Amino acid sequence: MKKTLIALAVLAAAGAASAQSSVTIFGVVDATIQRIDNGTGGAVTRLHNSGESSSRLGFRGVEDLGGGMSAQFWLEAGVNNDDGTGQAGSANNQFLAPVALDPTSTTARTVAASGVRPGQQGLMFNRRSTVSLAGGFGEIRLGRDYTPQFYNLNVFDPYGTVGVGAQLLLSSVSLNPTSVRASNSIGYLLPSNLGGIYGQAQYYRGENVSTAANSGDGNGWGLRLGYAAGPFNVAIATSRTTYGTVPVAAATASALATPATGQVLGNIRQTNLGGSFDFGVAKLMGVVSRDSMNSAVGSFEGRGYMIGATMPVGAGLIKASVAQYTTDIPTSGTDPRARKYALGYVHNLSKRTAIYTTYARVSNSNGVAGFASQPVTGGAGSPVLNGSSTGYDLGIRHSF
Amino acid sequence: MKKTLIALAVLAAAGAASAQSSVTIFGVVDATIQRIDNGTGGAVTRLHNSGESSSRLGFRGVEDLGGGMSAQFWLEAGVNNDDGTGQAGSANNQFLAPVALDPTSTTARTVAASGVRPGQQGLMFNRRSTVSLAGGFGEIRLGRDYTPQFYNLNVFDPYGTVGVGAQLLLSSVSLNPTSVRASNSIGYLLPSNLGGIYGQAQYYRGENVSTAANSGDGNGWGLRLGYAAGPFNVAIATSRTTYGTVPVAAATASALATPATGQVLGNIRQTNLGGSFDFGVAKLMGVVSRDSMNSAVGSFEGRGYMIGATMPVGAGLIKASVAQYTTDIPTSGTDPRARKYALGYVHNLSKRTAIYTTYARVSNSNGVAGFASQPVTGGAGSPVLNGSSTGYDLGIRHSF
Amino acid sequence: MKKTLIALAVLAAAGAASAQSSVTIFGVVDATIQRIDNGTGGAVTRLHNSGESSSRLGFRGVEDLGGGMSAQFWLEAGVNNDDGTGQAGSANNQFLAPVALDPTSTTARTVAASGVRPGQQGLMFNRRSTVSLAGGFGEIRLGRDYTPQFYNLNVFDPYGTVGVGAQLLLSSVSLNPTSVRASNSIGYLLPSNLGGIYGQAQYYRGENVSTAANSGDGNGWGLRLGYAAGPFNVAIATSRTTYGTVPVAAATASALATPATGQVLGNIRQTNLGGSFDFGVAKLMGVVSRDSMNSAVGSFEGRGYMIGATMPVGAGLIKASVAQYTTDIPTSGTDPRARKYALGYVHNLSKRTAIYTTYARVSNSNGVAGFASQPVTGGAGSPVLNGSSTGYDLGIRHSF
Repeated sequence: MKKTLIALAVLAAAGAASAQSSVTIFGVVDATIQRIDNGTGGAVTRLHNSGESSSRLGFRGVEDLGGGMSAQFWLEAGVNNDDGTGQAGSANNQFLAPVALDPTSTTARTVAASGVRPGQQGLMFNRRSTVSLAGGFGEIRLGRDYTPQFYNLNVFDPYGTVGVGAQLLLSSVSLNPTSVRASNSIGYLLPSNLGGIYGQAQYYRGENVSTAANSGDGNGWGLRLGYAAGPFNVAIATSRTTYGTVPVAAATASALATPATGQVLGNIRQTNLGGSFDFGVAKLMGVVSRDSMNSAVGSFEGRGYMIGATMPVGAGLIKASVAQYTTDIPTSGTDPRARKYALGYVHNLSKRTAIYTTYARVSNSNGVAGFASQPVTGGAGSPVLNGSSTGYDLGIRHSF
Repeated sequence: MKKTLIALAVLAAAGAASAQSSVTIFGVVDATIQRIDNGTGGAVTRLHNSGESSSRLGFRGVEDLGGGMSAQFWLEAGVNNDDGTGQAGSANNQFLAPVALDPTSTTARTVAASGVRPGQQGLMFNRRSTVSLAGGFGEIRLGRDYTPQFYNLNVFDPYGTVGVGAQLLLSSVSLNPTSVRASNSIGYLLPSNLGGIYGQAQYYRGENVSTAANSGDGNGWGLRLGYAAGPFNVAIATSRTTYGTVPVAAATASALATPATGQVLGNIRQTNLGGSFDFGVAKLMGVVSRDSMNSAVGSFEGRGYMIGATMPVGAGLIKASVAQYTTDIPTSGTDPRARKYALGYVHNLSKRTAIYTTYARVSNSNGVAGFASQPVTGGAGSPVLNGSSTGYDLGIRHSF
Repeated sequence: MKKTLIALAVLAAAGAASAQSSVTIFGVVDATIQRIDNGTGGAVTRLHNSGESSSRLGFRGVEDLGGGMSAQFWLEAGVNNDDGTGQAGSANNQFLAPVALDPTSTTARTVAASGVRPGQQGLMFNRRSTVSLAGGFGEIRLGRDYTPQFYNLNVFDPYGTVGVGAQLLLSSVSLNPTSVRASNSIGYLLPSNLGGIYGQAQYYRGENVSTAANSGDGNGWGLRLGYAAGPFNVAIATSRTTYGTVPVAAATASALATPATGQVLGNIRQTNLGGSFDFGVAKLMGVVSRDSMNSAVGSFEGRGYMIGATMPVGAGLIKASVAQYTTDIPTSGTDPRARKYALGYVHNLSKRTAIYTTYARVSNSNGVAGFASQPVTGGAGSPVLNGSSTGYDLGIRHSF
């Protein structure tokens, strides 16, 4: 993503020029001709978005406050550029992450005929909406932001978390509404002058009233600590989010666990370790992760690894990854397992624009009833139990 | 619509200047004091939007890739500036085009009281959201875009498709969700150096899973070919979209056809031919169109024409049009027919700003049960069967 | 709020430079760590937005038309930067002001499980979306805008209408959908050269069809007239809005009145008088207000006052206010009353950025069944009948 800084001439509303200001408009428009084939589970061929980088439109700025201090704002909205809609967020970090309205579903049609007419998800700053004070002490950041444990799954994977090659370890914990971002967060980031050490801490609230049964629902925290030096980069992260009751729809959407309807949960924890080494001719990277869902009526655990590499070839970049995720169910003799292979190529037409193609395959095994087999991406149905899923991307990514 | 190109000074986020970039912010804010009188069908006087040009806010940019190649993005949102809401799109090109949430309807009130609280339609890039690669070969464009057969109805009409004078032939096929735009489209546009010949092809997907009964619902394509030379301009276009089941609400909303509830359709086809000749003292234009809906249980056909003219008068422009649309129903002895007359004047205060007024009248005849008589615009109720509808606009249009 | 004027180089789309244009991007990102304690009514600790200034993102511009005339547009969206969502408006000035979708409510969960999936409120220009023509005669402004009687409650209060210290007199009439803004409005503002006299008139429509039972629902008007000279400023305002039926949910949300379900209303009137005097060492200000709801089955009246002061202390500003609102119910022997005290401090880090803290307390008395006791802010539950509510803010406000 290239950054665009708008040069501004600033005038006070009534009278003389007074303050210096700047707003940066930035974004990505990434469109991909995508095919997901879940075998007898069904296939779909579509024009989709965000095959190589997440499509977005954002506004941000930095104000120098003097004395090494600065104030910053960042408002970034996800854009589904295949149909023009925006993307929803996770509201107050609780289950039932709101999804884009789907007026084409059979149920929606019936409802619409009866008078309730759903609109479409508008643009909102679901990706990030923060205000910060930064200085020698680091950065205090308030608002909706990435959760610390998300970063390792993203930065140490050749595909990040987009397209058919996207990180398997992340999609395996999609049950966690704070697996990527949290609303209502207070974050602290270490300053950048600690000799390669970087890190952050984050605390967030579910904002339920104290007298409610679910008063702690959506509260949580995360930590990340890393070290980067020359070609070397490594980081560890962990997080914990408290939850109330899991609604049915959310529970069955995940491979991590399928609690019974209305089951009361305690918390979800995610821990991961990632690293990369750039040999010049190629960059190797890897992640290991362990997730658990702990409740009053039992717990489940998931563990996985990903090994990947990127290799520059002229104006292009070859990407490859292998990953595996296993869910450990105490009450089951077998552990459902998903394996993913992904191979891709990105051809840069400029620093801002590229064409790309990706092939990926997920193979599921040891599946048990109640656990859906994993597809190559989350938005196009699922393979049948223990079935495989294959995905293809051919797209254009343009940053501004 | 005036185009505004922002001059940018580009700095890399951390350090030296590196890439050249530009984002253009553009838009229209058009407000009109509008009265629609449908006789005994009811009247409404309101402050409405888009009486002379569609209100919008957009972001776009072009990157020179060298060698005659360029990458482009275009994100354009419709804005209802009378109440601040955004506009919904057509999702996956299927029936039940989502409409803006109407929290003031009786049904919505009841639902809200029971706990489901509808919001209002937020801003989304319903008008266009595309990324393109262009060069000597033409342009490949991916995303949500106008359908090819829409252009003739818009560019060869003095009123385009906005305000009380809006194109009758278009509103007659409002049953077709892709009558104006399609999501998930792959488009190809001819280069601009073909001696006046221009054209485009578009293919779009409904993106249903292959195993669904409606797997082809929303798939379609369109073609347009034109020739412009000096004062002369002519173009022909055709399109075909496959549909599954028509929900009740959508079916009764159109004059084209009223299939029974749940009727399985085959496809909707639209073909039109438009042209204009600029005599200097006046510009004459016209369109003829033919639409058909073909299904397993019968088909309907519509045909229409529009003749219009614009005449510059000092800083102003007089606009006039006459149009007729007839629906041919095989099982009916009579063919419902709507005739429209429109007369207007636009007074330019500058290249970007104008005030305008329009008068229009639609007369319906030969109506049969199940076919609604057509109003001057679609959003303010309908006249009674075979009734007339009159409209008035008095507004301001400002582009930026 | 600092204003940011983007310097633009303008090029016509095809060829030579032609028109001069400008778009200003402006906004506020204000995040506050807020605690609302309603005693046994429940408490909530949260990261909230708009504790000192309303968070927003806007686009506006002015075009010089020559001869002292100008055209202006203004599109301003409210932003909930704690979770990234947008804010809804009041649609057509009618009851059931649409609220942000709350996918975390129990009801919403149930509905979602049954197939209707609510999204989240997207960005829309709920704060203001207008186009204007201005000149020596004043300004004609069309669209969604503030109502005239809102200003006195905002500009003559140290806290305006945001944060835990927000204006008590305004929140007491939250039943009125046009208490802050109106959609579909036609406004006229006096020119600025009348020797200190300023004022505006506004008319707005509910836009119901003439044949509907509620055809007048949402129609209304407002007037404001003021005089400012040196340290002195005073203004009076009044408004009247016609209403149809009040739905249950909206009625119980207000302290002004609780009509029975389906009760037919006549109108709501609001009148207020505010003033301020800047002594240099401190600025004193005050407002008195009187509101009434008049219907066929009886009427209610509310009256209140607010006295406040701001005092500069170095780079900071101390704010204090005391307010009282009493509802006069003819059929009740007691008059429900709310009193509010607020004390705060804003520390400016620059002209654009500040940190702030506020403490506020509302005490309710004489409450009767059907009238909710008032909280310090409207969005975090309510105290029990005749209970108290305490609020704390600690936040950052950044303008751009």
